Amino acid sequence: MEKNIPYKTYLNEDEMPKQWYNVRADMKNKPAPLLNPATHKPMTAEELSAVFCKELVAQELDNENAYIDIPQEILDFYKMYRPSPLVRAYCLEKILDTPAKIYYKFEGNNTSGSHKLNSAIAQAYYAKKQGLKGVTTETGAGQWGTALSMACAYLGLDCKVFMVKVSYEQKPFRREVMRTYGASVTPSPSETTEVGKKILREHPGTTGSLGCAISEAVEVATHTEGYRYVLGSVLNQVLLHQSIIGLESKAAFEKLGVKPDIIIGCAGGGSNLGGLISPFMGEKLRGEADYRFIAVEPASCPSFTRGKYAYDFCDTGKVCPLAKMYTLGSGFIPSANHAGGLRYHGMSSTLSQLYDDKLMEAVSVEQTKVFEAAQQFARIEGILPAPESSHAIRVAIDEALKCKETGEEKTILFGLTGTGYFDMVAYQKFNDGEMTDYIPTDEELAKSFAGLPKVD
Amino acid sequence: MEKNIPYKTYLNEDEMPKQWYNVRADMKNKPAPLLNPATHKPMTAEELSAVFCKELVAQELDNENAYIDIPQEILDFYKMYRPSPLVRAYCLEKILDTPAKIYYKFEGNNTSGSHKLNSAIAQAYYAKKQGLKGVTTETGAGQWGTALSMACAYLGLDCKVFMVKVSYEQKPFRREVMRTYGASVTPSPSETTEVGKKILREHPGTTGSLGCAISEAVEVATHTEGYRYVLGSVLNQVLLHQSIIGLESKAAFEKLGVKPDIIIGCAGGGSNLGGLISPFMGEKLRGEADYRFIAVEPASCPSFTRGKYAYDFCDTGKVCPLAKMYTLGSGFIPSANHAGGLRYHGMSSTLSQLYDDKLMEAVSVEQTKVFEAAQQFARIEGILPAPESSHAIRVAIDEALKCKETGEEKTILFGLTGTGYFDMVAYQKFNDGEMTDYIPTDEELAKSFAGLPKVD
Repeated sequence: MEKNIPYKTYLNEDEMPKQWYNVRADMKNKPAPLLNPATHKPMTAEELSAVFCKELVAQELDNENAYIDIPQEILDFYKMYRPSPLVRAYCLEKILDTPAKIYYKFEGNNTSGSHKLNSAIAQAYYAKKQGLKGVTTETGAGQWGTALSMACAYLGLDCKVFMVKVSYEQKPFRREVMRTYGASVTPSPSETTEVGKKILREHPGTTGSLGCAISEAVEVATHTEGYRYVLGSVLNQVLLHQSIIGLESKAAFEKLGVKPDIIIGCAGGGSNLGGLISPFMGEKLRGEADYRFIAVEPASCPSFTRGKYAYDFCDTGKVCPLAKMYTLGSGFIPSANHAGGLRYHGMSSTLSQLYDDKLMEAVSVEQTKVFEAAQQFARIEGILPAPESSHAIRVAIDEALKCKETGEEKTILFGLTGTGYFDMVAYQKFNDGEMTDYIPTDEELAKSFAGLPKVD
Repeated sequence: MEKNIPYKTYLNEDEMPKQWYNVRADMKNKPAPLLNPATHKPMTAEELSAVFCKELVAQELDNENAYIDIPQEILDFYKMYRPSPLVRAYCLEKILDTPAKIYYKFEGNNTSGSHKLNSAIAQAYYAKKQGLKGVTTETGAGQWGTALSMACAYLGLDCKVFMVKVSYEQKPFRREVMRTYGASVTPSPSETTEVGKKILREHPGTTGSLGCAISEAVEVATHTEGYRYVLGSVLNQVLLHQSIIGLESKAAFEKLGVKPDIIIGCAGGGSNLGGLISPFMGEKLRGEADYRFIAVEPASCPSFTRGKYAYDFCDTGKVCPLAKMYTLGSGFIPSANHAGGLRYHGMSSTLSQLYDDKLMEAVSVEQTKVFEAAQQFARIEGILPAPESSHAIRVAIDEALKCKETGEEKTILFGLTGTGYFDMVAYQKFNDGEMTDYIPTDEELAKSFAGLPKVD
């Protein structure tokens, strides 16, 4: 064990980043623009402003400015739960008997239980600044809804959450946390929106999906005076806010005099992965340093590894702009995989472009293997990880074991996005030996791809 | 806002305490010894060693040594989740509009969700060192059982937990966390022990109590080769290990150049309160400084404020030594108060002596008022507190509001022992307006006091 690397490295308050980093500024091939679903022309700022807050629209469309100042009010909020620790996983290294050096950036030490709070406070802040009454959103696993509820409670904004019905019923405690923070939580699809009623008519008894909840939240935002819609992943603005994860990690590594070789993150819509890798990717894009980046996705919802890079609908109701992304098709229904946060059919446009440019790798993993890694990690490192985060743990362990074979002393960083305290039903299935895997067939994917919109 | 006080203060790894502090060494009136329930003579080390690990017995009986070295293996484990932050509650101060300066020591950033891990790893370490196969214990709310499961998983020890049946049924997720860490969890009372069978015969359909679960855990420990019993509160050894909380707080305050005036902690068996105040109490006992100490207990289980200072049984089955403490009588059954961790009928002998010597104050609070404070705190400080911890928040807010009236700029420190992620049933009752209070009548207490053992 090196003497000079502590178990945990925290930046001091004055070392915390004061600006977000916008990786698009350094990309030669910019991510494709959002398209108007009717005209197939790029969405204008004015069109987007009907749905999103004005300053967030500006961030969404900004492919030029590399650094954007974090407003003081957001910096103050960050100080309540950040910096997050960069942890050296000495105990995991020891039990794996690997020469690799493993680090993780732990984002779970706040009540939302994940990194989602980083963008929630930013989006709520700009809504408040614009003089809005409130915001609407959707939530699946519940971390994003919880994070937004917390941010809105802090700023005194109303918060309306559409929660995928199956999660609403299976996770009453997540719902209750949001209520404690004053949010209203509606199971989706619901009778409270036109799109919800339509979906219920066409699919009676459906337990909902993220794509459907998005449609409902957007409808309410655009039909209610003083409200806008906010989203926890996929969008460029979210990756911008989440860059705080990578910026802190980079600053902490520099403080330690260490440089990572491999950077690993789980990927659903891309909020954590994009935030974690952004500043490191910037160095790679500028030719200043090289890193291996690995996106990890569930084998049950393999957007990168088996999806198509194409324009697609972002939501079931097809009310949102079209986005070019690695996608399984907006009609793709993932099996009942418990990593709720990784079940989205598409992927961030920015990450999709980087992946298409071969600047990043992707692997898919089966969930029983993921929970094996989660259990091993929990027992030796003392943190019960979220199922989503455990995808990254799985691949970090696999890479560390490869180092054991080759004898290479690689430095591995992975993003530990959150804790699994509200995911014990999944752990119970694993503990009882009742967890299964599901990998979609080529036929199922082909059927889903057939529903992709035709864009010239 | 003063410029030089950060939101969160972390000690560096090399500033972390290397020794625990034993407040008994500085007490003029030592806590009364444990008595053999048959002979009413002080328990000898040999007698205690049938139940507890040898080194822990030595710590239990040591009223002389002020500082005890923390073994390196425990220091290494502490580095995984400690130091815990000393947080300046700027946002709470602002919303209360108080001149008081409020700090809290937050112990909830680990998977057990509370400070309990500080003693769990110590007790498991000494069990391992003694060559034992495993340990037994009881758990009510579940934090202690979780903490012990984590410590045992890390060290490769077997862990048998008796969980109060009502909690076992109401908190399946707590149980599942313990199982994930490899512990066996048995609802108590059970048919697996003689004392459990006896209690079930006498009270068919009982949902159990902490006192009953203790009896079962002790029976299994003393009847199984290679096992000992461990306990998460009340005992002197536990207060010793928990002194890490107060020592870190004191070091962080010294780093900031700040001295607290009032120190507030919730009190069930006394593990958190004792640990938090110990080093400050040491200064007071040695005449080096003065502080106001306030113990906060639920009005439904008011050991300090309405109990008797007398020898009493520690468990329902009366198999444990007698302890002199503030007690409501071992037959006292608290109402269905949700702050499970504060429902014990007795109180640490050390804290009882300090309270009897008027070195500490105590107040009791009703749980609806406690949850009002919890909700306010969650919304503005971003941490959803455990019901137990929220007792301290209630009184910290009350003291800060008194400062608002008087204009005094007092510095308040309170112990935020943990998070409420597994207590959402209680929050739901509060959110739905269905939470009630219960205060035992004088007649009920008199009836319970009648069962106190007669000790000369």
